[in-house]
Amino acid sequence: MVTTIKDIDELPKNPANYTALTPLWFLQRAAQVHPTRISIIHGSRHYTWHHTYHRCRRFASALSNRSIGPGNTVAVIAPNIPALYEAHFGIPMAGAVINPVNIRLNASTIAFLLGHCTAEVVIVDQEFFLLAEEALKIWSEKTNTFKPPILIVIGDEKCDPKDLRYALSKGAIEYEDFLSSGDPEYDWKPPEDEWQSIALGYTSGTTSSPKGVVLHHRGAYLMSLSGALIWGMNEGAVYLWTLPMFHCNGWCYPWTLAALFGTNICLRQVSAKAIYEAIDKYKVTHFCAAPVVLNSILNAPAEETIFPLPHVVHVNTAGAAPPPSVLSGMSERGFRVTHTYGLSETYGPSIYCAWKPEWDSLPPESRARLHARQGVRYIALEGLDIVNTETMQPVPADGKTVGEIVMRGNAVMKGYLKNPKANEESFANGWFHSGDLAVKHPDGYIEIKDRSKDIIISGAENISSVEIENTLYSHPAILEASVVARPDEKWGESPCAFVTLKPGVDSSNEQLLVEDILKFCRAKMPAYWVPKSVVFGPLPKTATGKVQKHLLRTKAKEMGPVKLSKL
Amino acid sequence: MVTTIKDIDELPKNPANYTALTPLWFLQRAAQVHPTRISIIHGSRHYTWHHTYHRCRRFASALSNRSIGPGNTVAVIAPNIPALYEAHFGIPMAGAVINPVNIRLNASTIAFLLGHCTAEVVIVDQEFFLLAEEALKIWSEKTNTFKPPILIVIGDEKCDPKDLRYALSKGAIEYEDFLSSGDPEYDWKPPEDEWQSIALGYTSGTTSSPKGVVLHHRGAYLMSLSGALIWGMNEGAVYLWTLPMFHCNGWCYPWTLAALFGTNICLRQVSAKAIYEAIDKYKVTHFCAAPVVLNSILNAPAEETIFPLPHVVHVNTAGAAPPPSVLSGMSERGFRVTHTYGLSETYGPSIYCAWKPEWDSLPPESRARLHARQGVRYIALEGLDIVNTETMQPVPADGKTVGEIVMRGNAVMKGYLKNPKANEESFANGWFHSGDLAVKHPDGYIEIKDRSKDIIISGAENISSVEIENTLYSHPAILEASVVARPDEKWGESPCAFVTLKPGVDSSNEQLLVEDILKFCRAKMPAYWVPKSVVFGPLPKTATGKVQKHLLRTKAKEMGPVKLSKL
Repeated sequence: MVTTIKDIDELPKNPANYTALTPLWFLQRAAQVHPTRISIIHGSRHYTWHHTYHRCRRFASALSNRSIGPGNTVAVIAPNIPALYEAHFGIPMAGAVINPVNIRLNASTIAFLLGHCTAEVVIVDQEFFLLAEEALKIWSEKTNTFKPPILIVIGDEKCDPKDLRYALSKGAIEYEDFLSSGDPEYDWKPPEDEWQSIALGYTSGTTSSPKGVVLHHRGAYLMSLSGALIWGMNEGAVYLWTLPMFHCNGWCYPWTLAALFGTNICLRQVSAKAIYEAIDKYKVTHFCAAPVVLNSILNAPAEETIFPLPHVVHVNTAGAAPPPSVLSGMSERGFRVTHTYGLSETYGPSIYCAWKPEWDSLPPESRARLHARQGVRYIALEGLDIVNTETMQPVPADGKTVGEIVMRGNAVMKGYLKNPKANEESFANGWFHSGDLAVKHPDGYIEIKDRSKDIIISGAENISSVEIENTLYSHPAILEASVVARPDEKWGESPCAFVTLKPGVDSSNEQLLVEDILKFCRAKMPAYWVPKSVVFGPLPKTATGKVQKHLLRTKAKEMGPVKLSKL
Repeated sequence: MVTTIKDIDELPKNPANYTALTPLWFLQRAAQVHPTRISIIHGSRHYTWHHTYHRCRRFASALSNRSIGPGNTVAVIAPNIPALYEAHFGIPMAGAVINPVNIRLNASTIAFLLGHCTAEVVIVDQEFFLLAEEALKIWSEKTNTFKPPILIVIGDEKCDPKDLRYALSKGAIEYEDFLSSGDPEYDWKPPEDEWQSIALGYTSGTTSSPKGVVLHHRGAYLMSLSGALIWGMNEGAVYLWTLPMFHCNGWCYPWTLAALFGTNICLRQVSAKAIYEAIDKYKVTHFCAAPVVLNSILNAPAEETIFPLPHVVHVNTAGAAPPPSVLSGMSERGFRVTHTYGLSETYGPSIYCAWKPEWDSLPPESRARLHARQGVRYIALEGLDIVNTETMQPVPADGKTVGEIVMRGNAVMKGYLKNPKANEESFANGWFHSGDLAVKHPDGYIEIKDRSKDIIISGAENISSVEIENTLYSHPAILEASVVARPDEKWGESPCAFVTLKPGVDSSNEQLLVEDILKFCRAKMPAYWVPKSVVFGPLPKTATGKVQKHLLRTKAKEMGPVKLSKL
């Protein structure tokens, strides 16, 4: 009877004990467990999880009826409205891939993206119909084999009905009509293989032409759960959509919310006022925002804010290292900020500054400094290190030696679409190369020092633009700051600061202000870090609130080199 | 440039973007993120996550040095002490399979289990050394090919040093010496395939001879996270080990605690007093317990309890449907009880009674009745239904029609070890057959009516022993009750109640008490449900606190059939 026990590893998979991991299960479960709980609120429209599940199945069925399925891409051009949420389930339920498009892009970039992935369907919010129309025109002109995609327009009572009428006159299918053509009992299937693609998102292309990041069902499942776990986000969370869903699939939170039977509060337009109103009206418990959004929350006029908050509001912020002053400001107002870091290539944030209880007793400034670090890995990111990119050797955990952030594990994308060269480079040596530069502190937490290209090299010394920015943010007159390299006759490059002043600051004497800022900097950093140029004005930003440093770099170049005589 | 987009599904796995899912990652991460946080407390011993990670790597290394690896089984016979926690990581880190043995079993059953899985290593707590020694003796006598396993004994300062000396004199290796022989920097690897086995646990064998349930790394990973999510268990949880870790791997919570950087409070002996003391001393936030443990918490003498609790304590209870009176009693004391259900075959609980906000406003009794239902599926259980086992058709959601609970998905075991027949039966028709009978309520929540064998068939009518027990539990004099079938001359079977009275109840006149109980029952249930026999005395229980109904059934049989004259 007692034989070898080898068969302990030889029990096969069968339909009862194995199924593909996919976040689509979350929606089915939400509809079964909490059918009457509110899933989505958009103005006066309220959906339950029962509604959402049926609408998504109609969505999948309607796509399937039009022969859209595995291998096809469906582009969606929309702000944070219910249809974009539904697209995160409806499209993969049909087996197809969702490609949420950044609505701030121009028509020719959108034309490039749609052509690159050969979108078979384009679903567009009525406000962006003209943009989509122009993009399709450019695409058709550039391609001999152009085949017009199925065009669907989403009407919104908050928008001008004329736009919708125009779209319909151009032959677009109305989104609700499209859904109506589908079967609410559509028998969707999980993917046969959890490695099947679920989403495609294009990098913002600040460094090169946009790359198509392909994500799979397995990763989306795991990162959706990771995003709840690192944030202490529990069943019934009320989530405000300030972060665009088109940005890294809203950091997987569309799927997380279904896993937690939470409620999605949609927002077409983000403002500090709208955020405070939603916290008050819907008892929002969680939202994500770029540091610039936090900044606007902090600097909102008192009559638009709520102080103290009626309950704890958790904020996940990423996109750039938030200056310590912003972190401590949010904390003082009662927001509990989790600082995260990631890339499109890691399903959004995959690193977070895990809070340590012992930090509670530190002075606010020390706390904020520790908190401004990017931190440690999410649960689904199994490898993280800072290495010398040449040798792949980890840098010492000294908080000083700069290296490249490399990552590996289930949180890393499937790869770039139709870009073998980029795949080879980014996956070199068994690690994903982020292109971001950081140090590792003695406690193992990492801290970004700069994107490779954001480092300013002055007289052969590396200067971190982030550190200069952090100092500038703590200056009482400064609302926002961004520092880039400007050509410099003596040093090759030197720091050039672009600065937005707080409302109400007296800017009548710019020279005096500049001198005050430089004096402030000199007291806090090495002399060669102090900006040689200071420019006042608004900062150019991407759709997700990231400062477009490449535009500032161009501007700094156009200013011409800093002359020797100035020294 | 624009080619077919088929390659969106053709991007291959590589070392940067794919790794096996295994809970072993959690421990590595805990040690990296929170090295100084307390991982385990056992009396005066405190370990940090740094310690635990290094001890587990020593464990794996020491096993590996002795050629223990993939395909090998390591049995552990121990109560809830640090070594059993470490075994959940150390053994699979060596690639081997952990087999935690129920310490309440007798030597011949343990001999059967060790022989069935050919345990190559047996690790035993000093208190159970004699038991292990006897089991090994029986095993060796029954098997020609017997090869003595490596024998390791765990010393505990809380135990009699004589036992340890005895074990050492018999050639057992002391556990700490064993660890010392391993390398704390041992370079463990995740399994090559996440389908690789991680654990083996034997069913309690109340229905048949014990079956070896094999679990894999993938399932352990997913169920560890599921167990946190359904419970709202967040980072830093303080978990008290009342549930034996040898029972379904402590419902995966050894792994969950590492994922959450929590703290494990060990307990050699469970009592209401010890539970209250731990809540007070360590600020316990979570523990798991069978309903009988809850019962003892409710009935503990006032001087041993804390009321009100200093903070919310979350309790996960499963194993049998807790009577509504127990659920409401716990709630009144300030415990937040989550009611779950599962089997060894589903990594422990995989179904839970998800709380609905609208229940908050119901009267306590209605609340408790809804709460006593087993409920809905965990996030990693992708399929759950109640079916007619013959036709596999789902029963109507009417709260009345009884069918078998069937499950499928990633929460279902790999299979039974060396038991093709049981595998075929339990995985028939693409579902795992639980053998438990339940109804589905109109809201989709399931409620167990009985184990197939616990149904009492009286005059061709099915009687649910669980429902009778629930009524008995609400009688003021009854501490515990269990109802089984007793042969009955007229009806074939009739209900026989075994009852333990609360301390202090006057039992001088048994006949009067029986009459009072029967009167109580008659007012609350159909006449044919009312027990025909009532027996007073303590109930026999398994190691996990489950009432051993098979012993009661035997006893009921030995009592002989209920005579016609009695009716």
